[in-house]
Amino acid sequence: MLHGIPSTMGDDYQLNVLSLLRYAATTFAETEVVHRRSDGSWGRSSYGEEFARVSRMADALASLGVKAGSSVGVLDWNSRRHYEAYFAVPSLGATMVQLNLRLGEADLAYVVNHSKAEYVIVDESLLPIAEKLAGESYVKQWIVASDRPAAEVETSLPGAVFLEDLMSGAREDYPFEEVDEKTAAYAGYTTGTTGRPKGVYYSHRASYLHSLGVDAGLSLTFTDVTMPITPMFHVLSWGFPQAATSVGAKLVLPGRFSAEDMSAIAQAFVEEKVTVANGAPVIFSGLLQYLRAQPEIPDLSHVRMVSGSTEPPVSLMKGFKDLTGAEIIHGYGASETSPLATLNWRLKPELAGLDEDAGWDLKRAQGLPLLGVEIKAVDPAGEELPRDGKSMGELIMRGPWITSSYHKLDDNADRFLDGWWRSGDVGVIDAHGYVKLTDRLKDVIKSGGEWISSIDMENAILDDARVKEAAVIGVPDEKWDERPVAYVVAAEGQTLTADDVRSGLSERFAKWQLPDEVVFVDELPRTSVGKLDKKAIRSQRAAEDA
Amino acid sequence: MLHGIPSTMGDDYQLNVLSLLRYAATTFAETEVVHRRSDGSWGRSSYGEEFARVSRMADALASLGVKAGSSVGVLDWNSRRHYEAYFAVPSLGATMVQLNLRLGEADLAYVVNHSKAEYVIVDESLLPIAEKLAGESYVKQWIVASDRPAAEVETSLPGAVFLEDLMSGAREDYPFEEVDEKTAAYAGYTTGTTGRPKGVYYSHRASYLHSLGVDAGLSLTFTDVTMPITPMFHVLSWGFPQAATSVGAKLVLPGRFSAEDMSAIAQAFVEEKVTVANGAPVIFSGLLQYLRAQPEIPDLSHVRMVSGSTEPPVSLMKGFKDLTGAEIIHGYGASETSPLATLNWRLKPELAGLDEDAGWDLKRAQGLPLLGVEIKAVDPAGEELPRDGKSMGELIMRGPWITSSYHKLDDNADRFLDGWWRSGDVGVIDAHGYVKLTDRLKDVIKSGGEWISSIDMENAILDDARVKEAAVIGVPDEKWDERPVAYVVAAEGQTLTADDVRSGLSERFAKWQLPDEVVFVDELPRTSVGKLDKKAIRSQRAAEDA
Repeated sequence: MLHGIPSTMGDDYQLNVLSLLRYAATTFAETEVVHRRSDGSWGRSSYGEEFARVSRMADALASLGVKAGSSVGVLDWNSRRHYEAYFAVPSLGATMVQLNLRLGEADLAYVVNHSKAEYVIVDESLLPIAEKLAGESYVKQWIVASDRPAAEVETSLPGAVFLEDLMSGAREDYPFEEVDEKTAAYAGYTTGTTGRPKGVYYSHRASYLHSLGVDAGLSLTFTDVTMPITPMFHVLSWGFPQAATSVGAKLVLPGRFSAEDMSAIAQAFVEEKVTVANGAPVIFSGLLQYLRAQPEIPDLSHVRMVSGSTEPPVSLMKGFKDLTGAEIIHGYGASETSPLATLNWRLKPELAGLDEDAGWDLKRAQGLPLLGVEIKAVDPAGEELPRDGKSMGELIMRGPWITSSYHKLDDNADRFLDGWWRSGDVGVIDAHGYVKLTDRLKDVIKSGGEWISSIDMENAILDDARVKEAAVIGVPDEKWDERPVAYVVAAEGQTLTADDVRSGLSERFAKWQLPDEVVFVDELPRTSVGKLDKKAIRSQRAAEDA
Repeated sequence: MLHGIPSTMGDDYQLNVLSLLRYAATTFAETEVVHRRSDGSWGRSSYGEEFARVSRMADALASLGVKAGSSVGVLDWNSRRHYEAYFAVPSLGATMVQLNLRLGEADLAYVVNHSKAEYVIVDESLLPIAEKLAGESYVKQWIVASDRPAAEVETSLPGAVFLEDLMSGAREDYPFEEVDEKTAAYAGYTTGTTGRPKGVYYSHRASYLHSLGVDAGLSLTFTDVTMPITPMFHVLSWGFPQAATSVGAKLVLPGRFSAEDMSAIAQAFVEEKVTVANGAPVIFSGLLQYLRAQPEIPDLSHVRMVSGSTEPPVSLMKGFKDLTGAEIIHGYGASETSPLATLNWRLKPELAGLDEDAGWDLKRAQGLPLLGVEIKAVDPAGEELPRDGKSMGELIMRGPWITSSYHKLDDNADRFLDGWWRSGDVGVIDAHGYVKLTDRLKDVIKSGGEWISSIDMENAILDDARVKEAAVIGVPDEKWDERPVAYVVAAEGQTLTADDVRSGLSERFAKWQLPDEVVFVDELPRTSVGKLDKKAIRSQRAAEDA
């Protein structure tokens, strides 16, 4: 690294997440923070009041012994207190550990113990989860969050204290200290298909810069109204709570909800005049269905809905546009990337001439990297591939909010390449800079030194109306390394042959890429969340071939 | 400072200004960079090509011996090569020293010597300035920038080399190294009314974060077209070249121009479809006059014009709005603040009910601080004043792009207060967070423990049509510390009395604030740039009273 003449600037001024809220509380003191309580009622406060409550919460936590270096778990929905914990815990130099309430009991216990979460804040509605954990965990102090008086809440948690009780006696002018910007403000654990959850620890610096990245990527301003729908216990709800705070945008916290009942979410869009929200296709599909059934369709043409998790179907994007005017914006990232790495919002001026179909097709892509995120596609030797929209390789990333290691995990060298994080995603980057995912690295078929996208081939097979389900896996081959094999479930009452499948593919795939073997089956194995379980198909095949 | 659990993020990834251009060149490779040459013709390149030229320039400079720790002065207009130097010089770990061509010879020589600028890049048109400096300066290598072949350029500079010649033989893939983010990328010298210029050295980190601040403050995106009108040799043209680059916005570099001939600037607004520009009221006034005289008035309703230096008159803001639709946005800052500290663009939603006059009045204010800038008004004891829109105090600031010292200047303790930079500006902050300047600290009148704004009083006196000019100074008073004295020049053919002046003031000022003495004079002393010279009035008065 080069070192030159020292600057005279405030380079030692630490980027702290509390600064985001302090800014909002100072410059946007009256701007509203709206929250939905567990009983479904709505409450209203402001950034000025939230800062005072964060001060109380920090003071309360400090009085329990929370200090720099402590880990504080949080088990909660998208609630007001969860929002306050986003600032109060890191302000003490402590780390807020996200406890993903969707994890199995064993994994959740692992996260609590691996992160050494001595303190856990738990929403009343999630006490059953906490109570199961209580016996076997590292937790020394349970802190119950509830809108009801402590006397009305029953719990078997040993020595539990009540957050609001502690806060009501605490000070509104807690003497906050500056925190080293490289200290972890938050921790989240990623759950892959194999192995234990892996800890990603987000520094104050990374979270602060990520907030600026979200602001810039979405042109967020104080005239916006932001509603984080993505759970706040999962990749920090994409950093939306912090980003909204950082620009003084009105914030709407929708509390607890489910994809099956989108009434509260729909209500908030209309009544609170939400302009920016995030979520996954499954949530937005639920919302679209709900809105379609309403007597009056709201005008959401001012709304930007950031959709992560998986590629949003064109039908969903078009459906929202046609029904409400709202725009679905595809965003891409992972726990390891804080999480926003790319966004696909405005069309580049140079692409203004695209026809409608090409335009929708482009909107399915992951989009353009945010400033601060370096991303490239590399071949198996780690060499960068050309940005030609064709050369498929693993996407690797680095930058101030990209992880460069895992917490207390030594055998992670295979997840990094010269300091770049390996996403495990396979994709292409085109000359305009657009990133497009084509497969997962573990699912891509490596044949004769080339890669074949299993997802592309599956989608192509599914284009045949006679096909109900399809999975393509690579099976070991002495000469070609791997060869594609397609597993196909015919649609009810339909029949087709292997040659039908191959000829359907021949337009889009080269001859050498076509599957040598097409296996017709009655059904395909799926994971507990309904995803194709290719791992199961591969092991079954390996057992058969053994 | 608190230190907690280390994060797993890329916290050691240095924020480097070259990263901004690398991002643009990677993700917005085809986006245009348009530049005006010294002969008035326009040229076009792209971020992709600019990165290649920056690589060549870095290679060329390195071959001359420029390295980490070097200082490289630049004497140039808002040109393409100046833009390239903004990235090439810092990319080597060297510091680019802005040479303000408006400075007097002695001050310019002081800057070159104090910054130890061994290398200076000088545009052909500015050779006369460089040649005057050559004898007495620290410069060891003069580098001439010109669009013409070296053989056609005459200069007496000893051993001068030609930048384009060096670049044409240089490599497009210079092996850039990461630079410590606390290294100074740029230096600028401020010129107060007293003493030698003071060096402000901008780190890579500060410039990078300031760019993000400008992006967020103006909602800059790649659909914008940005034209830096503010000189690039003066507070880095408000960081607009870097900010435009950081979002991949088309950039228009207008070269050399003057307030007297705004034709090239006006042409660029229309033909290049500029959406964001910066400048000072004097420039925008010239532009407005020019546009008024045109047969066809362009529609600039998509344009945001950021105006610094002094408060933009309402007549100018209204004039632009009415004639072209363009919005003038008041911005505030100083060399010491990189420079953007506040911006006054969109109205806060809570103020939507303001009537038109109050709205324009609000737009004269300096506006809302950017995220990252902490600002407060303090009393003479350094205590923070309430944010009530009334309590007048000196504005002090801190943050990652606010200076915390001056380069090699030890006796600067009076410029800082507990690590906050003292702006020397007196103002108020209101409950909505708006900053409004009321005076310079040296001009404010301190009477009986209260402050009286000399500028407010002058403006109030000038409201009387019988008055042509007015200046208010504080004169020492044993009992009250200071008392205001007004110096008034009556308008041609008009007469008025001291009581007329006092009664005109009595609506807006308390009785104790009224000037005891009103002195009628024929003219008021002014500085070389036409500003009221209150220092001269004060010394003259002191001499009379002695």
